[in-house]
Amino acid sequence: MSHIYIYSPSSAVRDKAAFRRGLARLKALGHDVEVDEAALQHHMRFAGDDETRLAAIARAAASGADVALISRGGYGLTRILGQLPFKAMAKAIERGTHFVGLSDFTALQMALLARTGSTTWAGPALGEDFGAEAPDDIMEACFDDLLQGQGEGAGWRLPASDPQRDKPWRVGSGTLWGGNLNVICALVGTPHLPVVEGGILFLEDANEHPYRIERQLTQLLNAGILGRQRAVLLGAFNRYKLVPGYDRGFKLQTVVDWLRTQTRTPVFTGLPFGHVPTKVLLPVGREVELLVEGRDALLYWGHVHHHDHHH
Amino acid sequence: MSHIYIYSPSSAVRDKAAFRRGLARLKALGHDVEVDEAALQHHMRFAGDDETRLAAIARAAASGADVALISRGGYGLTRILGQLPFKAMAKAIERGTHFVGLSDFTALQMALLARTGSTTWAGPALGEDFGAEAPDDIMEACFDDLLQGQGEGAGWRLPASDPQRDKPWRVGSGTLWGGNLNVICALVGTPHLPVVEGGILFLEDANEHPYRIERQLTQLLNAGILGRQRAVLLGAFNRYKLVPGYDRGFKLQTVVDWLRTQTRTPVFTGLPFGHVPTKVLLPVGREVELLVEGRDALLYWGHVHHHDHHH
Repeated sequence: MSHIYIYSPSSAVRDKAAFRRGLARLKALGHDVEVDEAALQHHMRFAGDDETRLAAIARAAASGADVALISRGGYGLTRILGQLPFKAMAKAIERGTHFVGLSDFTALQMALLARTGSTTWAGPALGEDFGAEAPDDIMEACFDDLLQGQGEGAGWRLPASDPQRDKPWRVGSGTLWGGNLNVICALVGTPHLPVVEGGILFLEDANEHPYRIERQLTQLLNAGILGRQRAVLLGAFNRYKLVPGYDRGFKLQTVVDWLRTQTRTPVFTGLPFGHVPTKVLLPVGREVELLVEGRDALLYWGHVHHHDHHH
Repeated sequence: MSHIYIYSPSSAVRDKAAFRRGLARLKALGHDVEVDEAALQHHMRFAGDDETRLAAIARAAASGADVALISRGGYGLTRILGQLPFKAMAKAIERGTHFVGLSDFTALQMALLARTGSTTWAGPALGEDFGAEAPDDIMEACFDDLLQGQGEGAGWRLPASDPQRDKPWRVGSGTLWGGNLNVICALVGTPHLPVVEGGILFLEDANEHPYRIERQLTQLLNAGILGRQRAVLLGAFNRYKLVPGYDRGFKLQTVVDWLRTQTRTPVFTGLPFGHVPTKVLLPVGREVELLVEGRDALLYWGHVHHHDHHH
C-alpha cells in the first residue's frame, strides 16, 4: 500500500466524474489516497488562484507521500515558476516522494531540474489516466513498478520508418529530460529551462498541427538544443486535423523526415508517452542509457552510473 | 505610380479570388504590379518548396520595386531563416525597396534585423488586405503614405483601461520591433531574434486563446525581453473562443492586467495592427518615439535622431 497525494497545480478539474473514478481506481489498487484540500478549486480557468496552487504544491511536498500525482495538466504553472517551493520539493524528493505528471507539469519539472537537479517523473495524471473508463495496463504496470521500486527502464518498438541497426547500438547515456513541446518551447530563453548537454530529450504534444510542431522543433534546433543532445525521442503527437486538399502530403512524418536532415542527433519516434492512454513513466533529470537493436529501443536507468552533480 | 512586387515566401495562396482582387485593387490605385513567377505555387502547404521560396525572396530583392509585398502569411519562413539572402535584401532596402508584410513574415523581419539592422515594414498582405471585399481606408492611406515618402508616424486612441497621463508623456524613444507573438516566441533563444535594448516592442496574434497568449508573454517576460524595452504595444489579439462556463472571467484583459503587475515596462494596447482590416504600417528596426497624452498615443519616426549602428 502506497500513500498517494492528489493535488491540482494547473487548470481546474473539469471532468469531476473522471476525477472520482481515478480516486476509486487508486483505492481499488490498494493505495492510501489523500486529496489536497484545494484539488477541486476553480478560479477563472485555474485550480485556484496562484497562491492557492502554490500552497497546494507546498502541501504535496510536505505530505510525505510516496507519490504526489497531479489531477490534470492544462495551464497554470508557467506563470508561477519563479515562486515554486523549490527547496521543499527537492527535500521531499530526497525523502522519497515521487512527483508524477505531464503536459503543463513539464514546466514545474524543467524549473525544478534547472534549479535543484532533482528527478521527477513524466507519467500519468489522475483524471485522464486512472480515471479513464478502462485505465491502460502498461500505464498502471509502470506506476506499480515505480511504487515497488522496481522500475529500471522503458522499452518500445520503433516504427519501421525509424533508423535501425542490425547490431546492438548503444546510442549513448545522458540526462533524460523533456516533456510537452509547447511548454518546453515556452521556457526557451528563460532561467526555467535546464541547460542539458549530452542529454536524451523526449517530446510530446497534442492538439497541434504538424506545421506548428515543426516550428517549435525548429526553435529547439536553431537554439542549438537538439544538437547538444545524444538523442531526441518523439512520443505521441496527436489530436490534430490535417487539411488534405491544402496540406497536400504535409504531415507529421514529413516533419520528422525534415528534422532528420537538419541535425546529426539521432531522432527516434514511437516513444509511448504523451496524451495517449499507453504511457511509460520516465525519470526526468536522471542519467539514462539509450539502447537500440533492430526495432527495439530501450531507455535504461537501472545501474547507470550517476554523473549528477546536484546531489 | 509605384512598382509593387508580389511574392509568396510562406504558405501557398489558398484564396485565389482574394489574390486576384488584391492585384486588381493595386492596379486600380495606379500601381505597376509585378507578380513573381512562383507566387501561386503550391508544394505541400507551402508556396513552393524551400528553394522556390528562397528564390522568390531573392527575386523580390532584385526587382528594384518600391514595395515587395507578400501575398499572404501562414507558415514557411522559420524553417529557412538561415538561408535567406540577407545581403541582397539589405542592399535592396538601401536602394529603396520597402519589404512589407506580417504574421509569418515577422520571422524574416526579425532575422534580417538581427543580421543586418535593415528596416522592413509591418503592414498589409496582398490577399487579406488589398484583396478584401472592401479594403480598409486607413490601411490604404498608410500604404500610400509609405509610397509617397510621407509616413512619419502612427497614432491611435488608447482604450480607457490603459494607463493615462494628464500631461503629455514622452514614454521614450527606441528601436521599434516586433510582430506576431507566436513567431517572435518561436525565435527566442535562436540567433534570428534581434537583441534590442530600450526598444519599443509591438505584438499581435490571431487564433490563440488568451491563456496561450499569456504563456507566450510570460516567455518574453521571463527571458528578460519585456523588461529591457521602453514600452510594449499590444495590437489585435483576436479570432479565439473563450469557454464561458470554464474560463469564468479569464479573458484577454485579465492577461493584460496580469502582465502589468509583472513588469515595470509600460504596456499599451489598442495598436491598430494585426489580423484585422485596419492596420497601420510600422517601420520594424527604425528608431521611433512614443508619445502619450490622455488617451492619444503616437509612434513618431519623422525626425527622430537615428542611433542605428548598422548603417
